[in-house]
Amino acid sequence: MSLSNEEILGLVAGVCTTIAVIPQIKKAWKTKKVKDVSPGMFAILMLGVGLWVVYGIVQNDLPIIATNGVSLGLNSVMMYLMIRYREK
Amino acid sequence: MSLSNEEILGLVAGVCTTIAVIPQIKKAWKTKKVKDVSPGMFAILMLGVGLWVVYGIVQNDLPIIATNGVSLGLNSVMMYLMIRYREK
Repeated sequence: MSLSNEEILGLVAGVCTTIAVIPQIKKAWKTKKVKDVSPGMFAILMLGVGLWVVYGIVQNDLPIIATNGVSLGLNSVMMYLMIRYREK
Repeated sequence: MSLSNEEILGLVAGVCTTIAVIPQIKKAWKTKKVKDVSPGMFAILMLGVGLWVVYGIVQNDLPIIATNGVSLGLNSVMMYLMIRYREK
């Protein structure tokens, strides 16, 4: 498998936007506090990255499919933590 | 200007991932609290969407350029609020 420079650039960009949520997951996991975090942000993010996956499939664009697929999974983890640690 | 179905799908996906941060900005603005929000998340996001803009320019992909450009601006606003409202 050989990647073009453009595909490598897209993958690096996608890795950044994909892993960005990991520090937030770690923080929520460690502190068990999500009071200041917006649930709306993660709900809209999940919808958006889901649509990006569809877009990537239609355009046959590997970086978009791969990175947004993982992003959907990570955002689901964060949404789970938001629900688990919400203040009643 | 006429858009293909694929471009419309990409724009809708991009609008979602772009506007997702707005509820977080509103929440931080209203509560003046960002203690539970990860600064690392927004730092990596800004780097990532910046690289997506470059990718979009290289690929000549309008939805990617437009949405990630706006996203970079919105994430900068959130980063400003994170710095302004951080607890000393």
